Amino acid sequence: MMETDVCIVGAGPVGLFAVFELGLLRLKAHVMDTLPVVGGQLAEIYPRKPIYDIPGYPSILAGDLVDRLMEQIAPFHPSFGLGQKVRGLEAVEGGRWLVSSENGDQVLAGAVVIAGGLGCFEPRKPDLVGLEALEGRGVTYMIRDPQAFRGRKVVLAGGGDSALDWTLQLVDVAEELTLVHRSSAFRGAPESAARVQALADSGRLRLLTSTSLLSLQANGDGWLEAVLVQTQGQETLSLVADDLIPLYGLTPQLGPIADWGLALDASAIQVNTETYQTSVPGIFAIGDINTYPGKLKLILSGFHEAALMAHGAYRYIHGGAKPSFKYTTVTGVKGL
Amino acid sequence: MMETDVCIVGAGPVGLFAVFELGLLRLKAHVMDTLPVVGGQLAEIYPRKPIYDIPGYPSILAGDLVDRLMEQIAPFHPSFGLGQKVRGLEAVEGGRWLVSSENGDQVLAGAVVIAGGLGCFEPRKPDLVGLEALEGRGVTYMIRDPQAFRGRKVVLAGGGDSALDWTLQLVDVAEELTLVHRSSAFRGAPESAARVQALADSGRLRLLTSTSLLSLQANGDGWLEAVLVQTQGQETLSLVADDLIPLYGLTPQLGPIADWGLALDASAIQVNTETYQTSVPGIFAIGDINTYPGKLKLILSGFHEAALMAHGAYRYIHGGAKPSFKYTTVTGVKGL
Repeated sequence: MMETDVCIVGAGPVGLFAVFELGLLRLKAHVMDTLPVVGGQLAEIYPRKPIYDIPGYPSILAGDLVDRLMEQIAPFHPSFGLGQKVRGLEAVEGGRWLVSSENGDQVLAGAVVIAGGLGCFEPRKPDLVGLEALEGRGVTYMIRDPQAFRGRKVVLAGGGDSALDWTLQLVDVAEELTLVHRSSAFRGAPESAARVQALADSGRLRLLTSTSLLSLQANGDGWLEAVLVQTQGQETLSLVADDLIPLYGLTPQLGPIADWGLALDASAIQVNTETYQTSVPGIFAIGDINTYPGKLKLILSGFHEAALMAHGAYRYIHGGAKPSFKYTTVTGVKGL
Repeated sequence: MMETDVCIVGAGPVGLFAVFELGLLRLKAHVMDTLPVVGGQLAEIYPRKPIYDIPGYPSILAGDLVDRLMEQIAPFHPSFGLGQKVRGLEAVEGGRWLVSSENGDQVLAGAVVIAGGLGCFEPRKPDLVGLEALEGRGVTYMIRDPQAFRGRKVVLAGGGDSALDWTLQLVDVAEELTLVHRSSAFRGAPESAARVQALADSGRLRLLTSTSLLSLQANGDGWLEAVLVQTQGQETLSLVADDLIPLYGLTPQLGPIADWGLALDASAIQVNTETYQTSVPGIFAIGDINTYPGKLKLILSGFHEAALMAHGAYRYIHGGAKPSFKYTTVTGVKGL
């Protein structure tokens, strides 16, 4: 069992920045995440996508933002428990908490910060026979590196922003690109839909609207070979495919956190806006996983929440004592 | 008279970023500031100082942050009224506001955002005969560029962080550096005080504690020539000086804003944390000038406040209609 001042559940951008704000107050942090890497959604869903609304960065790739945050928190030497699904939370003596993961690791902490983003999110999957056998063998739900699809025959499925967006990104990379969407209208940004339509009109990609996925065909080695689809007119087409990428969105699930006795609003954790503490003293929630009046799910909001949370966690751990507030411009950053 | 969607009072980092958040919601902004340049305190007080707590920037010079923010808001083509002291605020028909400046300019806006930082802040000045005649002729209260003091004989006065900090920065630049402080103990960070003491011990600078400024001496052309100081033992010393920089802090003053009928708490403007609206609908306050439970005067908090304010201002201007919320990662940034 390890001991730390604060256990942060979630290694996305907000969880990482929390290490910095806690460190300024001389609180040591341990960060746990289900994913095997830091960065959360930025690393998992869109590492190569630019973000435009991080203050002071007219544009920054999601993966680069994660790198910068890791550099920023380095002086505070956080410890990490990655690839660990957090399961249990138990109050122990002295107002402390025992956090345990599925693989049996235990962390004893003075306070707990849930920075779980969308929670344990799972991709929505199409209902196709034999789908799971082909996962990782041609069927994938998240694009980490568009370059991995260079020269390949790719079938994308979906009608939201994610499907439109990745279609636009992969059109110059894939050898053959098909977008399959069961409806005739897209849910994503009209501008993106128009650009996809224009590319289809000029023959750069194949756009099959009002068309559903029907079944999958594997080759002798058990890898995806073709995707069969059915048009509204009941016509069946066989699309030769190295890759099928269904982009039907993610199902956010709080997972075990839902059983921790925290006040929830739908699937978000209620917090106050003074310290971002949950209904349970000593447990804080920051970033996309929390909710309060006016909440916007923005990374920059999570950064602010992390700063105020750190002062709240300090007071919780130090029996109500207020931390002294100093500007880094004056003091610099002293490592832990 | 000019018309705009939102008039932002204050061109510091938070006022600038507000242009971005308003622009994402298709609201056009006009930004006014007393200073002749954008950047607020970052430009005025410490353009060459590094800041360490901007998320995603392990270190960034204050002036560079201003440059990045200007680049980030450029697509929204804000208009600027710089060097204009805002004076009047008047409600006009249709829920709009008329903002007027001391030099007679008028701006008609759908909503007003006060991002005034410390307000109209003034340096605290020592009580010395003939001081004002030497301002700009050797006496200065703000250091914009340390390099301007290269090779010069500089006398700093003060005992807070600003005095200690600039002493540490100027020690390698000035030809001769003296720090005068009337008390024997410093109010600034103990670590900085220790570093200054060590530099004095090794002869790198002259440290005169328990010593007060007594009078100034000008040369025939009316420029500073020497600073006379008096020790606690009543000894008088004449310090040959090209520059005297009293760093006695700033006196924040709300100025005319104090007369606008907004609910105040000490000299800060009370806001709610849902939209950062003041007690007067249609008037918002963000950044260091506002207060609410848990408030920390951090630039990163002002960024968050700007985002939620923008949604509040949109609803105020559009009769309660909610803006549609889109991620820039999906939509990119469309200019105005």
